[in-house]
Amino acid sequence: MNTVEVITKKRNGIILSDEEIRYMVNGYTDGSIPDYQMAAFLMAVYFQGMNKEETIALTDFMRRSGDTVDLSGIEGIKVDKHSTGGVGDKTTLIVGPLASACGVPVAKMSGRGLGFTGGTVDKLESIPGFHTSMEECDFINQVNQRGIAVIGQTGHIAPADKKIYALRDVTGTVENLSLITSSIMSKKLASGSDAILLDVKCGSGAFMKTEEEAEKLGRLMVEIGNSSGKKTMAIISDMEQPLGNAVGNALEVMEAIDVLKGKGPEDITELSLQLAGMMVYLGGAAGTAGLDMEEGMAKGREAAAKALASGDALERFKSFVSGQGGNPAIADDYGLLPQAGIAIDVPAKADGYIHGLDAMKIGLASQHTGAGREKKEDSVDLSAGIVLRRKCGDEVRRGDILCTLYGNDLEKTERAAGEAAEAFAIDQIRPEPRLLIKKIIG
Amino acid sequence: MNTVEVITKKRNGIILSDEEIRYMVNGYTDGSIPDYQMAAFLMAVYFQGMNKEETIALTDFMRRSGDTVDLSGIEGIKVDKHSTGGVGDKTTLIVGPLASACGVPVAKMSGRGLGFTGGTVDKLESIPGFHTSMEECDFINQVNQRGIAVIGQTGHIAPADKKIYALRDVTGTVENLSLITSSIMSKKLASGSDAILLDVKCGSGAFMKTEEEAEKLGRLMVEIGNSSGKKTMAIISDMEQPLGNAVGNALEVMEAIDVLKGKGPEDITELSLQLAGMMVYLGGAAGTAGLDMEEGMAKGREAAAKALASGDALERFKSFVSGQGGNPAIADDYGLLPQAGIAIDVPAKADGYIHGLDAMKIGLASQHTGAGREKKEDSVDLSAGIVLRRKCGDEVRRGDILCTLYGNDLEKTERAAGEAAEAFAIDQIRPEPRLLIKKIIG
Repeated sequence: MNTVEVITKKRNGIILSDEEIRYMVNGYTDGSIPDYQMAAFLMAVYFQGMNKEETIALTDFMRRSGDTVDLSGIEGIKVDKHSTGGVGDKTTLIVGPLASACGVPVAKMSGRGLGFTGGTVDKLESIPGFHTSMEECDFINQVNQRGIAVIGQTGHIAPADKKIYALRDVTGTVENLSLITSSIMSKKLASGSDAILLDVKCGSGAFMKTEEEAEKLGRLMVEIGNSSGKKTMAIISDMEQPLGNAVGNALEVMEAIDVLKGKGPEDITELSLQLAGMMVYLGGAAGTAGLDMEEGMAKGREAAAKALASGDALERFKSFVSGQGGNPAIADDYGLLPQAGIAIDVPAKADGYIHGLDAMKIGLASQHTGAGREKKEDSVDLSAGIVLRRKCGDEVRRGDILCTLYGNDLEKTERAAGEAAEAFAIDQIRPEPRLLIKKIIG
Repeated sequence: MNTVEVITKKRNGIILSDEEIRYMVNGYTDGSIPDYQMAAFLMAVYFQGMNKEETIALTDFMRRSGDTVDLSGIEGIKVDKHSTGGVGDKTTLIVGPLASACGVPVAKMSGRGLGFTGGTVDKLESIPGFHTSMEECDFINQVNQRGIAVIGQTGHIAPADKKIYALRDVTGTVENLSLITSSIMSKKLASGSDAILLDVKCGSGAFMKTEEEAEKLGRLMVEIGNSSGKKTMAIISDMEQPLGNAVGNALEVMEAIDVLKGKGPEDITELSLQLAGMMVYLGGAAGTAGLDMEEGMAKGREAAAKALASGDALERFKSFVSGQGGNPAIADDYGLLPQAGIAIDVPAKADGYIHGLDAMKIGLASQHTGAGREKKEDSVDLSAGIVLRRKCGDEVRRGDILCTLYGNDLEKTERAAGEAAEAFAIDQIRPEPRLLIKKIIG
């Protein structure tokens, strides 16, 4: 096969065969196809797209480019949850213990944050002693013993995705449905779970800016998951403003614990219960097996709400933390988590209502406090970040505190405070409330 | 400036500023922008195109990426001629001496052949002793003394084009109007002539398959040439079938001399006189200065026809050859040129008329005799190639010889003969004659 011919075919809008897609994925992974040819190919895909069959093939060959995790040592139906990434999205820390407390074995592989979105691994590592790198057998043992474990991504899962994603990032070819789908799903399908729940974010703080785009992505991923023999569902949720109030690593851990204590912000609590309910249904736990989707999700959600109210989920969280070397006492004493040396309040400049709270701007401001990375090699300040004091729809008066920036570098924190101030739009008219959960795709 | 941002802008169809285009061209030339980002950029340009201003800027920065030849040491108006490349196109060997004999100083920089199109330098090198690599001062001296010289392309002319062209070749981004234009015109504008004549080929044996595409390219190049202060004209000429009968290196030299002796094929003689007439007009020679285009071209052509009939052009050719170390006696004894050891005739398989004679197939068959290169490093067999015995519109009877293949490797030459046979389409109905010269753009 000839690389230029495959590039030219796609450029001319011709549907590629499985064989041609395999040639590109394997050739790029093994280095026989150079970066520049793959870059031209990806840009051609950006313009001409891929149909469902091509996307399935691309995902499949990317998945098969590396190892597949074997979770057969874990009893029960393993359900994986994936968020397409947003600002303040700490749902894994809440949903994992909730679903686990309802009887769903949670064996989760998570990543680090990059750019303006955080990563679960970074957040967990803000807990003193917590580690996410472990042998596969220890990971499986913990799930069997404690019902939940989170492991960092290994280099052997979908190496093709790793390489292609890095290239897309520097060639302006990130925003394509088939490429996003194959990137997410190749890893999910290789991660060994039996069912997959996808939280597709939409809005200013997400890849997908509109509900339509998000729905398209969700539907495609669900189709690909199901066609690969894994029961897959998706939820489209709002990321126009950050989720919850806390953005940062230790700050998000505190908020997650607040939610598990029943005193967290409403939006994140609501979304977490919904996601947990769906995981319970996908796992056929808590008597949901055999029910239809509506009923099953409702019953799952009920079970999750019960686990929250009873404190079972919080206990599950503590057990999970201590199982991975972390100090569970942080749940009762947030002072044991990393503390920032600097706190800067951002006051409202006018009276009115919060009309917009740009999630991406908040994410970037948080990154600039030190909470996020620009490059993979960067280290993060686990104590840094932002706590929002007002969110969309809230009434404010001039001088009221909109948010507080935390950090350890005065100059950086001050600059980030200026950026965070820009994220708030204040208007005289009360805005229409935004729908948090926009759609369920099953 | 940020490379990903520039790529993304173009990808999104936004018109780039001069500054952004300069950043891409210079960054790629100096190596600070890697191949993969340039490849993605070129594919984005393929899809989104560039407007006239962007193409002018691209051409200009590519031209300025290296040296500009200084031809001020040559008296008179120097006119350069460029063909977009075709099969059997040996017009430079004829038009150069013709225009020179009419008083136009011809200082031409030429390239080698690649793929199915030949290069003037290879053809000239089939003349024993002829060399095209010389010092700039010797080049200028020869033009002043003998009225014509041809030099091989140097590495310092438009290095950005060299690098970008090599990348386009392997990334499926060759066929874009702005990229083709900038590639041709950056070199032409750097080559030091005062006026430029472009022969844009169209048909199966050319980049531009249709007259419309060729005209678009011609108009854009003429605009860019004129806007850079060089009087520029273009002719759109047919390349559906090869030009003349000979394809190959020594074979084309013989045919060129035949034309200069007044006994060459009609099509190549006609096109050569037209091109020479236009060069005379562009150079303001032979009393054409100040005339309008129609009149000037007609008068130029008259002068060229006279130089042909009088033998002046042939004498000029001999002087040119001996000036560059070649043996001028080849003009009288073709046996002094390299001779192939093998000749294979291709007979017609049916009675009828030649309906089609695919130039690209003939070009490829000629390349496969050994006359052309696949890769830059390949050497060529100067004696190899094809002589057509029948062309479009000719009547044939089964068994008549359609063409003769020349080479020195029996297996290669036989295979090429099979390919050449495929180039001929024979039909019962006499085809409409094709127009050789389709349009003049001035």
